[in-house]
Amino acid sequence: MEVTERTRLRRMREKGSHRREDLDTVLSAGFLCHLGVVVDGAPMVVPTVYGVEGDVLYLHGSVVSRSLVQAPDGVVCVTVTHVDGLVLARSVFEHGVNYRCAMVYGVPRIVTDPDEKLRGLRALTERATPGQWEYARQPSRKELAATSLVALDLAEASVKIAAGPPDDGDSPDAALGLWAGELPLVTRFGPLVADPLLADGIRPPAHVTERVGRLLGEG
Amino acid sequence: MEVTERTRLRRMREKGSHRREDLDTVLSAGFLCHLGVVVDGAPMVVPTVYGVEGDVLYLHGSVVSRSLVQAPDGVVCVTVTHVDGLVLARSVFEHGVNYRCAMVYGVPRIVTDPDEKLRGLRALTERATPGQWEYARQPSRKELAATSLVALDLAEASVKIAAGPPDDGDSPDAALGLWAGELPLVTRFGPLVADPLLADGIRPPAHVTERVGRLLGEG
Repeated sequence: MEVTERTRLRRMREKGSHRREDLDTVLSAGFLCHLGVVVDGAPMVVPTVYGVEGDVLYLHGSVVSRSLVQAPDGVVCVTVTHVDGLVLARSVFEHGVNYRCAMVYGVPRIVTDPDEKLRGLRALTERATPGQWEYARQPSRKELAATSLVALDLAEASVKIAAGPPDDGDSPDAALGLWAGELPLVTRFGPLVADPLLADGIRPPAHVTERVGRLLGEG
Repeated sequence: MEVTERTRLRRMREKGSHRREDLDTVLSAGFLCHLGVVVDGAPMVVPTVYGVEGDVLYLHGSVVSRSLVQAPDGVVCVTVTHVDGLVLARSVFEHGVNYRCAMVYGVPRIVTDPDEKLRGLRALTERATPGQWEYARQPSRKELAATSLVALDLAEASVKIAAGPPDDGDSPDAALGLWAGELPLVTRFGPLVADPLLADGIRPPAHVTERVGRLLGEG
């Protein structure tokens, strides 16, 4: 990946990377990003779902489409963050968060080609809900036309990972005798909730039931 | 809260709100936000921790401080998103995400008054790690000076909540006989990981151990 002024890694405490495999690891651990666009000179940050195919990030995005119309050459920033836990140190100053974060910059492109739109929608559907693309009814031509899909090149990106114990274990504060360590945060898929309108006797498919209890990012 | 053009709620499927109590509910269910700023004309979206005291949102923010120096009148957007699950519909088109999201816009102010800085830092420390402000060593004057804290008024904000089953339970697609419903995502605090440098015999305090197993947002 290309290193630019805005993706250059500045902070010392976090481990930074511009390696594509680190980017892929962060992107494949979730399905939701925060998309930042500039609208009328002000930033707007909205959550949306994403998918990856090859070197392209696909975003579900009526919001960015609207802003693209306003500023066709506008750069966007897509940030994907996974929070792994809280860092409890001896001093308040050394408290922090363990996380994995990817930031991708680029000028997005509205996808208009129906074949690419299908591929992109498939990528983001399968990222969030693997197996559903084949199981559910796929988009009609009308639905496809009503869906806004945006493509962003993965060329300009950076990854930051903060992990491990607090930094003050060998500082004078260690003598305070306070507990220090990590309080992890774990995100799992919970028990299924059937649609109240579901007809009797329809069982959830295996690709859905097997996710229950799994960690987000495990698939 | 004031309703402006950019916080006006546009989408039909999601339930929107401008009520302060709904904003407070979303903000009190987590500790991490995505902060959007404009830097050299491009949006930058970074994760950071926040706290609330009264009508003020406090953000830990070296990034926004840097951009504030560049554009002292610049608006920022702070977005807090909690993902509650995946919505599995009969058609791909009706798939979605259940979430709670708050967006706050405003011109931030760098906090310089030492008393306000302490109050703000306390608010964000206690949001993420309740009990640690009193337990851990509080910031020294030098640490306080080295910490960037930003204040943002809660006046201009909107909340969106998407919840419940998919929308196609009474559509012709219901006749397809496919399972539909929600696959919830549940985030809990996991087992503590002690700092490897922790001296023998130091036990974690009750305000930390009692969070293990709890849902994020329960405290």
